[in-house]
Amino acid sequence: MIHYQNPKMVLGTIPVWDEDGDMRILLCRRAIEPRRGFWTLPAGFMENNETTAEAAMRETIEEAGAHIEIHELFSLLNVPHVHQVHMFYRATLLDLDYEAGVETLEIKMFAPADIPWEEIAFQTVSNTLTFFLDDHAARKRDGTYQLHTMDILKPMPTPPESIPAG
Amino acid sequence: MIHYQNPKMVLGTIPVWDEDGDMRILLCRRAIEPRRGFWTLPAGFMENNETTAEAAMRETIEEAGAHIEIHELFSLLNVPHVHQVHMFYRATLLDLDYEAGVETLEIKMFAPADIPWEEIAFQTVSNTLTFFLDDHAARKRDGTYQLHTMDILKPMPTPPESIPAG
Repeated sequence: MIHYQNPKMVLGTIPVWDEDGDMRILLCRRAIEPRRGFWTLPAGFMENNETTAEAAMRETIEEAGAHIEIHELFSLLNVPHVHQVHMFYRATLLDLDYEAGVETLEIKMFAPADIPWEEIAFQTVSNTLTFFLDDHAARKRDGTYQLHTMDILKPMPTPPESIPAG
Repeated sequence: MIHYQNPKMVLGTIPVWDEDGDMRILLCRRAIEPRRGFWTLPAGFMENNETTAEAAMRETIEEAGAHIEIHELFSLLNVPHVHQVHMFYRATLLDLDYEAGVETLEIKMFAPADIPWEEIAFQTVSNTLTFFLDDHAARKRDGTYQLHTMDILKPMPTPPESIPAG
């Protein structure tokens, strides 16, 4: 039996398309468990011999076939009960020629008002999206994007589809 | 044979004592290989069931017996050729009752001018100290501490003590 003593890193991006202030965020609908059918930012486990930014870009290509320019680290979220640390980089889409990878059912660009909050796969993703939209809005008041850190100390509530009927 | 597919996180702190602007940084002289006898910030491998900040604080207690208040994440350095990501938090020492742990030969408080740059154990530590001293100095010019990220893509030069004589 193999005991993994060390937590793993999950790296992803917030891929943004902004045409004349009409900002959209790329989300992927998951084709795999856990949380199949739910929406996520492109993200996955960091592997050996790559940097955090390289892992984030690789996952964005694998899951969304998206061409991005990667910016600074935007969020770092601890999820100690599953032995993970999630990190997301800000990214700009270079074009809209994305294509769902094998772990993705569908890709959509969402305006801030249309983000399907009830169908987001993971709490680290909904927290990152919330931080991002706050900072994005704050830029109109001289704010800037900054690193957000957070500890998620409790397991997620039971997903809606598993609540027993009656 | 066990293959570790995922990089590990090394967490540490920059423990600072500042009395009337006379700032000192706590460094530990390593009692263990690699780089025995060289100076480092307190740091070590993150374990399961803890957050990044908890790991940084635990390592600071284990290696330096130091009582600290931990602040924000200050540096994140990728070292892909050894499958590691190093992170350091800013920290304030609450007192000077530190005590070398079993992996530490000696602890000293260093003024910025006295830091033994030639005897620092790891490049991630010397980079973090450089970033920290730059930001600390910039505060007098309305600067602030901010997150620093860096990729260290080449192995360190051979340590001085391993250069063969003659």
